[in-house]
Amino acid sequence: MLDEINRAAEFLAVHDKIRLLCHLSPDGDTLGGAFAIFYALRSMGKKCCVECGDDLPEKFQYMYPDQMGDFKPEYNVTVDVADIGLLSDSQQKLQFSLCIDHHERNNIPAEYKCVDSKAAAVCELVYLILKQMNVNFTSKIADCLYTGICTDTGCFKFSNVRAITHKIAAELMEFGADAHKINFKMFTQKSVARLELERLVIENLEYFYNNKCAIVFVTNDMMRSAGASESTFDGVAAIAVCPEGVEVGITVKEKDINEYKASVRTNSFVDASEFCGYFGGGGHKRAAGFKINGDMQTVKNKILDKLKKEIFF
Amino acid sequence: MLDEINRAAEFLAVHDKIRLLCHLSPDGDTLGGAFAIFYALRSMGKKCCVECGDDLPEKFQYMYPDQMGDFKPEYNVTVDVADIGLLSDSQQKLQFSLCIDHHERNNIPAEYKCVDSKAAAVCELVYLILKQMNVNFTSKIADCLYTGICTDTGCFKFSNVRAITHKIAAELMEFGADAHKINFKMFTQKSVARLELERLVIENLEYFYNNKCAIVFVTNDMMRSAGASESTFDGVAAIAVCPEGVEVGITVKEKDINEYKASVRTNSFVDASEFCGYFGGGGHKRAAGFKINGDMQTVKNKILDKLKKEIFF
Repeated sequence: MLDEINRAAEFLAVHDKIRLLCHLSPDGDTLGGAFAIFYALRSMGKKCCVECGDDLPEKFQYMYPDQMGDFKPEYNVTVDVADIGLLSDSQQKLQFSLCIDHHERNNIPAEYKCVDSKAAAVCELVYLILKQMNVNFTSKIADCLYTGICTDTGCFKFSNVRAITHKIAAELMEFGADAHKINFKMFTQKSVARLELERLVIENLEYFYNNKCAIVFVTNDMMRSAGASESTFDGVAAIAVCPEGVEVGITVKEKDINEYKASVRTNSFVDASEFCGYFGGGGHKRAAGFKINGDMQTVKNKILDKLKKEIFF
Repeated sequence: MLDEINRAAEFLAVHDKIRLLCHLSPDGDTLGGAFAIFYALRSMGKKCCVECGDDLPEKFQYMYPDQMGDFKPEYNVTVDVADIGLLSDSQQKLQFSLCIDHHERNNIPAEYKCVDSKAAAVCELVYLILKQMNVNFTSKIADCLYTGICTDTGCFKFSNVRAITHKIAAELMEFGADAHKINFKMFTQKSVARLELERLVIENLEYFYNNKCAIVFVTNDMMRSAGASESTFDGVAAIAVCPEGVEVGITVKEKDINEYKASVRTNSFVDASEFCGYFGGGGHKRAAGFKINGDMQTVKNKILDKLKKEIFF
């Protein structure tokens, strides 16, 4: 990886007028990585900007600059974008000079690729690249990189965390990253609506197959009663797989009349992506999803039947 | 602190037949610290044992040895014990040779004291002491120390985390700490009783003083209805301080008829330890507690009145 990191560092050091591209439904890692590079390049007197096909979430406000500057970008660099479909339609037509990513599979047709699937977050890679560039790590840059690392690791909880993840976090704190402020915002603080939604999810969990499977329907009525918006729902699908003994946790969210979206989370051996494939969906091994239509009871039976047939026979 | 750490290391290196004392209601930090020292001393051929006035929770089973060995202890070392009252009655009468702790206030009358309130966990201190002793860090010792650090920091989320906390975590992972397994057990997986208790806590949260304060009473009826044991309650006190805007979250647990234990958590400016001091309790800046007697309404009024007078006037 050292070669790729050095080449990425050299590319960023040598070129100017760079557009940094984040993936759709932007998260802390794609934004943290892109804005860290943005501030680093700007401190070197370069013109650069960050672009995303979706609106930037208010939650990450503390990372955003007052203004991006007005210029015609000449080079495009993707940050944390695994799939070309995760860019907006117009962005998909661009030429890509550099792709920085940490996903297992990456199909961005970039001239230079700096992809390390062992990195817990793309921000780990960006940190190493900026270090190679001898960037002056301001507390702003440190905040951006720390954000990517903590959000992509569930605050150092997931299996993707390595010793180097903690070493980088330590150095970012030394550079002034306000870890507590960021973690508080990302992990501790919850809106009253979110807490109420969590309460309703716990209340409505149903257990099947020797309690190895938990299913919960999140109806529009429940969303309304909790005062929840769509963004409140983010991450709620993780609850169904928490109860001890549960291997498959399924959260079925009502989208419209007789239209549902199922989020499947698994703990250790069931391939969620494969299971969702039976319904035309997909995703990762431990987190995947699919769309399914029908009334609630029919949907539940379809899912339970498939679980029985494929997993809990 | 270097002097204290060196002296503690020297004490442990020179002496034999050591009894390591954990505090009542033992948590991951007091147990992790004590068992890390236990395995280190045993690997040096010394006799030692770990004692706690309460039963050892099943949750930390992976840290416990098959047997302690049979011998008459000659020296007593407290680990993470801030107050003499946190030892059993018979333990309180012992002579204490060494006290290793990280609480703001510590009243253990020990010959040597190694107390650093800046340490996020006592396991940070124990790590530095064992390092000074040139201990061979086995994966078992690393698991114990990692457990103390992750549990006392809410998995690196709390304000007590410093750069050195992450550096130590990195080194413990290099020594073989199974961080993911431990974090899964401590933070992801929850018993059905725990989830139900969380649901009841959210349901019973009451907001005061412009929603800056949230209070919840956890009664024995609630515990029974959730199927919760005392250890299920561990960490539940963190919920009351999660709702957006809340600065002080207070969880009042019924212990017996008209006997309560209040756990106070604060977010950013209220000194929980100071507040609990008004009721004869204490602890850390962001997490402290006190005992209080009376019927539920009286207890609630007493707490609300004190909050009004001291904080939300």
